[in-house]
Amino acid sequence: MLTRAMTVGVAAILGGWNTARGAEPSKGAVAVNPRLYSFVGGEVGKWSVVSSKAIIGDPLPEVERLEIMTGAVTTIPDGGKWMLRGVTSNDRYVTRHEKDQLTNKQVALGRPDARYMALIPIRKNARWWALTQDERRAIFEEKSKHITVGLKYLPGIARRLHHCRDLGESEPFDFLTLFDFAKDDAQAFDDLVAELRTTEEWKFVDREVDIRLVRTS
Amino acid sequence: MLTRAMTVGVAAILGGWNTARGAEPSKGAVAVNPRLYSFVGGEVGKWSVVSSKAIIGDPLPEVERLEIMTGAVTTIPDGGKWMLRGVTSNDRYVTRHEKDQLTNKQVALGRPDARYMALIPIRKNARWWALTQDERRAIFEEKSKHITVGLKYLPGIARRLHHCRDLGESEPFDFLTLFDFAKDDAQAFDDLVAELRTTEEWKFVDREVDIRLVRTS
Repeated sequence: MLTRAMTVGVAAILGGWNTARGAEPSKGAVAVNPRLYSFVGGEVGKWSVVSSKAIIGDPLPEVERLEIMTGAVTTIPDGGKWMLRGVTSNDRYVTRHEKDQLTNKQVALGRPDARYMALIPIRKNARWWALTQDERRAIFEEKSKHITVGLKYLPGIARRLHHCRDLGESEPFDFLTLFDFAKDDAQAFDDLVAELRTTEEWKFVDREVDIRLVRTS
Repeated sequence: MLTRAMTVGVAAILGGWNTARGAEPSKGAVAVNPRLYSFVGGEVGKWSVVSSKAIIGDPLPEVERLEIMTGAVTTIPDGGKWMLRGVTSNDRYVTRHEKDQLTNKQVALGRPDARYMALIPIRKNARWWALTQDERRAIFEEKSKHITVGLKYLPGIARRLHHCRDLGESEPFDFLTLFDFAKDDAQAFDDLVAELRTTEEWKFVDREVDIRLVRTS
């Protein structure tokens, strides 16, 4: 189904095409968005898949490993079965007060002892996306306490959110959230996702897969 | 620099690649985001370029015509010099009350007598994107009255906003706004953009080009 050398990045195909970056026609290749991450499920990768469960809607095809790639993905790893992509972006709901609380407690992914990881792709339904900003914020925080709940689990659980909905291709999910934590925080992580899944916000989730991983190197 | 048959869509290159759309591995091609629009400046297109001015920052290369394409763009029109892309998306700032006011007055692009058009690509600086949601909203509406100002010019001026910042490629602008109006509303449109350009919000704009067009068919 997949060939190893299949080019999936758009940089190659757009090479030499002027995307109006400056005043003068440019001959340079189109740069990949530096905030883009690609998640390839297959037979190779730094992360070993412990479990993959469909929480809501369809599951993802079973794979043994996950590779997380930054920048341009030009060559599919051996045995790749699926790829999910997303970009990190500006915050959509947090206030300055909340942001300051988060900044004081949160840590970046990749701590040496954070050998456990979860990748949770989520799609929200059309009803969610038709809401206005104030309505989405009210459900997200005032009703569901998404930020408040998340804060309780900092700094043990590190998190990075990727947006997929506004990529140029039609993606199967709207968000990909990546978490990492040490073994001692594994139960706390289960508590965190269980708590969020009971909220008003989750009534708008129409697909969710929970992929648990452990670092192999 | 450009060849006519150059493939710029990613659908072709991703054909046969399984993007984990459902439960089972799929052999289908990747679908382009149905909200994606491509704007190609060159020698062909339904829209004739009347003027193209850099308001802030670098201009765009001069072209005679603009073509606006929906869906997958697989072949560059003859003489294409640049391409801008963006997706329509959910509203980021409007409240339900404001949305209801907008919905009651606004009309879609493409009225038969709306032979005049403007394409205004804009980029905002890093300082804007580092603000939290409440800070951006306060500048956007409470200080700059972006929605209130826009409402004054409805329904004469129709508008469609496209987001570029979270595409998979690094785009030269963050937003592309497309407007159309009848000849009688041309002065009103000039007043609208002049009013917005004096606002606090525009202090965060670090590139803006104002392209005026007239329909040729």
